[in-house]
Amino acid sequence: MVLKKIGNIKCNEDLERERKKCSFDPLELTHLIDGSPEKTRERKEREHYFLSDPELRDTIPQDYLSHKEKYEQAVRKACTLFRKVTQLRDKGGDLEIFRQTLSGMLGSAILKDGNPFTVHYVMFLPTIVGQGTVEQQAEWMEKAWNCDIIGTYAQTELGHGTFVRGLETTAHYDPKTKEFILNSPTLTSYKWWPGALGHTANYAIVVAQLYTQGVHRGIHLFIVQLRNEETHEPLPGIKIGEIGTKLGMQTMNNGFLALDNVRIPREQMLMKNASVLDDGSYVKSPNEKLAYGTLMFVRVVMLKNATSDLAKACTIAIRYSAVRRQSEIKPGDQEAQILDYRTQQYKLFPYLAASFAMRCAARWLWNMYQDVVSELAGGDLDRLPELHALSCCLKALCTAESAQGVEVCRLSCGGHGYMTCSNLPTLYGQATAACTYEGENTVLLLQTARYLMKAWQQAVQGKVVPPTVAYLKHAVSAGDSPHHWENSFISAFQQMAAGKIKNCADSMGMRIREGCTPEDAWNMTSIELVQCAEAHARVFLVQTFVSAVGELNASVAMKTVMTQLSDLYAIYTLLQNAGDFLMYTHVTPLDISILQNQMNMLLSQLRPNAVGIVDGFDFRDEILSSTLGAWDGQVYERLFEAASMSPLNKDLVNESFHKYLKPFLKSNL
Amino acid sequence: MVLKKIGNIKCNEDLERERKKCSFDPLELTHLIDGSPEKTRERKEREHYFLSDPELRDTIPQDYLSHKEKYEQAVRKACTLFRKVTQLRDKGGDLEIFRQTLSGMLGSAILKDGNPFTVHYVMFLPTIVGQGTVEQQAEWMEKAWNCDIIGTYAQTELGHGTFVRGLETTAHYDPKTKEFILNSPTLTSYKWWPGALGHTANYAIVVAQLYTQGVHRGIHLFIVQLRNEETHEPLPGIKIGEIGTKLGMQTMNNGFLALDNVRIPREQMLMKNASVLDDGSYVKSPNEKLAYGTLMFVRVVMLKNATSDLAKACTIAIRYSAVRRQSEIKPGDQEAQILDYRTQQYKLFPYLAASFAMRCAARWLWNMYQDVVSELAGGDLDRLPELHALSCCLKALCTAESAQGVEVCRLSCGGHGYMTCSNLPTLYGQATAACTYEGENTVLLLQTARYLMKAWQQAVQGKVVPPTVAYLKHAVSAGDSPHHWENSFISAFQQMAAGKIKNCADSMGMRIREGCTPEDAWNMTSIELVQCAEAHARVFLVQTFVSAVGELNASVAMKTVMTQLSDLYAIYTLLQNAGDFLMYTHVTPLDISILQNQMNMLLSQLRPNAVGIVDGFDFRDEILSSTLGAWDGQVYERLFEAASMSPLNKDLVNESFHKYLKPFLKSNL
Repeated sequence: MVLKKIGNIKCNEDLERERKKCSFDPLELTHLIDGSPEKTRERKEREHYFLSDPELRDTIPQDYLSHKEKYEQAVRKACTLFRKVTQLRDKGGDLEIFRQTLSGMLGSAILKDGNPFTVHYVMFLPTIVGQGTVEQQAEWMEKAWNCDIIGTYAQTELGHGTFVRGLETTAHYDPKTKEFILNSPTLTSYKWWPGALGHTANYAIVVAQLYTQGVHRGIHLFIVQLRNEETHEPLPGIKIGEIGTKLGMQTMNNGFLALDNVRIPREQMLMKNASVLDDGSYVKSPNEKLAYGTLMFVRVVMLKNATSDLAKACTIAIRYSAVRRQSEIKPGDQEAQILDYRTQQYKLFPYLAASFAMRCAARWLWNMYQDVVSELAGGDLDRLPELHALSCCLKALCTAESAQGVEVCRLSCGGHGYMTCSNLPTLYGQATAACTYEGENTVLLLQTARYLMKAWQQAVQGKVVPPTVAYLKHAVSAGDSPHHWENSFISAFQQMAAGKIKNCADSMGMRIREGCTPEDAWNMTSIELVQCAEAHARVFLVQTFVSAVGELNASVAMKTVMTQLSDLYAIYTLLQNAGDFLMYTHVTPLDISILQNQMNMLLSQLRPNAVGIVDGFDFRDEILSSTLGAWDGQVYERLFEAASMSPLNKDLVNESFHKYLKPFLKSNL
Repeated sequence: MVLKKIGNIKCNEDLERERKKCSFDPLELTHLIDGSPEKTRERKEREHYFLSDPELRDTIPQDYLSHKEKYEQAVRKACTLFRKVTQLRDKGGDLEIFRQTLSGMLGSAILKDGNPFTVHYVMFLPTIVGQGTVEQQAEWMEKAWNCDIIGTYAQTELGHGTFVRGLETTAHYDPKTKEFILNSPTLTSYKWWPGALGHTANYAIVVAQLYTQGVHRGIHLFIVQLRNEETHEPLPGIKIGEIGTKLGMQTMNNGFLALDNVRIPREQMLMKNASVLDDGSYVKSPNEKLAYGTLMFVRVVMLKNATSDLAKACTIAIRYSAVRRQSEIKPGDQEAQILDYRTQQYKLFPYLAASFAMRCAARWLWNMYQDVVSELAGGDLDRLPELHALSCCLKALCTAESAQGVEVCRLSCGGHGYMTCSNLPTLYGQATAACTYEGENTVLLLQTARYLMKAWQQAVQGKVVPPTVAYLKHAVSAGDSPHHWENSFISAFQQMAAGKIKNCADSMGMRIREGCTPEDAWNMTSIELVQCAEAHARVFLVQTFVSAVGELNASVAMKTVMTQLSDLYAIYTLLQNAGDFLMYTHVTPLDISILQNQMNMLLSQLRPNAVGIVDGFDFRDEILSSTLGAWDGQVYERLFEAASMSPLNKDLVNESFHKYLKPFLKSNL
């Protein structure tokens, strides 16, 4: 984020005209999104507190720096940022501020390519809380909370990601010294990827295979000091560094770690659940599932981030499309705003609608998560599988669609969307990373599919099924009834998902009857299984969006727009998957044609309000950080100003002319 | 490209096993792709000549450098590269070498993020040849050919891309001095984007609105000197610089240019077609269409590049998937090669097949292009519109699918695909750029759609239509015949495309009858029109692929594999667009289920040959430039080695610890 020097220039006229013709009050939308006018005010205050601080700005845009300089600048800003966060916290600010400044929008406005301290707060601290004994919490939380130490969470290895049981790092207990001895026995066992591990953290929670009394006890967590607290030198036996440049998140300082006979005291294994006694006896965890809570929390947060990444990209692309004029719709007319082209509306508005659908789903999931967590505390694990299944497919579908949407937005801005200063490439780098981390999307979808297959069997057997899969029971009992879907999108989506789930269960069954093992049948059916999980997530997204709009407490004008968005989302999604609806529901080819026309109509209806809707998100310019998306729409001035900041433009003649180019041109080849 | 220090290590065992079980000889495929064993030998010689030269390697991987350093390194390498190219040329090497080393695979192996000299050869030189008079060619070609000067092609402006008639740069003829006076009257008229314009080129062909004798004469081309040949200082009236960092192509040195009363002699307007006489009289071009040749040439070349980008990404992802082991298919088994997961095969093999489909289409289009060019020389313009329509939709569909495919390959490599050293992010940056430049994809598809609407009318009226749209006549005459598609993919694709084209023509007609102007009807139907053009491109891709495989002169083993690939391509594409086939053809829901099973079978059949197929592409390691895709499959060793090159890893403790981190940690917040 670079201080914009463009001062006091007026808004672009096209954008002003868009704002005047908006049929609803964008401020009403802002309040709806924040929750209340009071919450909007608080958010804006918080944004002002951070974003107006010149110390949190870059002097040179980071894209021009070397990899090393980028990291150094990030550490400087991260330190400043956390001094400010702590001051706020100590004044009694709420804890949402941590999420916002670390993994949320504020954080990515300030350190748009990643904050090396994030893992400390998002993984290191919560793991100690979640997995540490009371004594361990007392000892480590204070240090961590006060930033006397800075930690990371080291699980993934060079050769091991998805399959946690496959991790190779070992921790052998030595009862003589009451220590664990940690080792990285192979190159593939090197810890790889943890943020901050490279040069920032001095402590890590290391995930390793525990051995005591000569017996393998499975995966456990250990607090390991990596670097001397005074000198920051790696401790003996610790080989450590960063893993190099990436598509995005350059300043996360992702690192590697090899351990060579590193000894830590017995007290540094996190023992809230399982534990190792002095003599090396091992006491098992009462319930393995208790560890799942944190993972699901992270996925719920990721859903929120996927939503806001997409909303930001839509804001940038829609404002730019209102400002950009290109070609004539009628010969001789003024060049048209590209937002007037139906093809442009078709690229942008469905994703704008999707960002609202995701927002509703994220809110619903967040509430369910909080319910389940309090049930867990009371020892009730009943809804955990349902929450798990839902959070897996939603994380997968929403991160994938958010990344795809960001990219469509970028491409819809033509060449200028390819410029880093549009912020769209960086947004994409962030959005697409979420498809892989915290559970690779295909792996997660297959987890949901496993749940759906079970739920289908239960439904077929007439058993009770949880609410979010209740539609399967209906599908079982309705059988091949000739009922039309009667224009209820929810029921069409449910029919479609149920049809695909039934079809998968049948294919699996057939393959097993033909002699396949269940595992091979599963693998052979996995393309369709993934599609089932996606279909299930779509049911949920359409359902929560349609319900949320139905229950909306808002002005008629606002409700009208939100209804258009939810209709558009349902119709667009249906048309994108037309084959499935034709195969598994009562939707007919004629319906498809009618829906195509309805979609066209919705695009026309949304057109005049498009800028108003994205204004309603109320993203500060610093949060969008985009030459194309700023409030004032002074796109060309900002592009030129951004170019002027290139260090290459400081000299009229680059020294490579004298060194290389001139000798080449004058060489009489 | 960095010199790999891993010497003489053996191949990864899984990869070796894959190679042993391949059912055909990959060398046969290599010869097929190159054209003959002789051509393979030549290519390998050429690759050795360039890629074994240490002067063309980086000492530090460019990703770690600052933006400025990247540019300087690129200029150094570009000069060395072109000395070598010229030496080869002077020894009688063929001209394909230029394409290869500039915009082809060799070029992107050496300057993987763009070569600032490319535009000189690909645009500046050909434009002088295509648009200059004999005298102009004599004067400028020699200088350009010998690299006494280095040029760029400046058309796009900050506010103008797609719509060439909207360009704002002006050239007023002054008969008193016999000069043109060039001006950039507004900020939006600044030239923006031309490669090499920033700090490299000293000449440019500038596209501007011509005015003579007070009359506006439209768009013309002018040779403008930008910089002093000795000092490289910008000439008076020239404001020039680079436009900043981008998603990719960082070292193309894309620039901006503003002209303030810059005077050039009358002889520097390119006058092969239209011309301006001494007194300012204007002589019109005999035929505007004569300028189209170069544009189409560029699109044909882009098709080739889209193909090889995709083939490279498939090679990287498939080799990595054979080496990477993760999770168990059956409990207790060894972790499986991820290539054994059906979902992984489903991600990769269809794109592998698509790369062959694109290759066949590119070859066919290249032949047609050469025919049409020689017809043009004889004054025959008949097939120009057909070629134009075909090249537009193929460029659009293939660049989009190639970019998408590269990204799917990247994501299929999990976290490691996110590393720059996998080369997948850079490949994507290159592939996705092609969706925008040389004709934005949506704009191009609408051009094809316009041709298809005309062709449909001609077919309906019983007129003769060109061969590539002949299927429309069949659709008109067959009407709603109940014939089944009889498992001919080509005929199913034709039925589908014809159905969509007819449907569009009907929608347009209805909207016009309802009172819309043709222009509004066009815009309102444009979502469907774009889909028509895509469907047309798919017909062509399936058709040329199936035919090419049918005519293949190869071993049975080779033909079997190629038939599997073309079947997979057709079935996958059909299933991806199942809704369209269910709506517009005789394909039934039962057919869809059968095809789904066939696709599963094809994925199984291709599995054992997947590594062999990508080996057949015969990409040198330097061309793949990927830690994940190298021939030896030593993925983890290479990842670790790449990390070791990070300048951040040169010091155990980064200086930011002392400057920022320690004061922060010790501050007792």
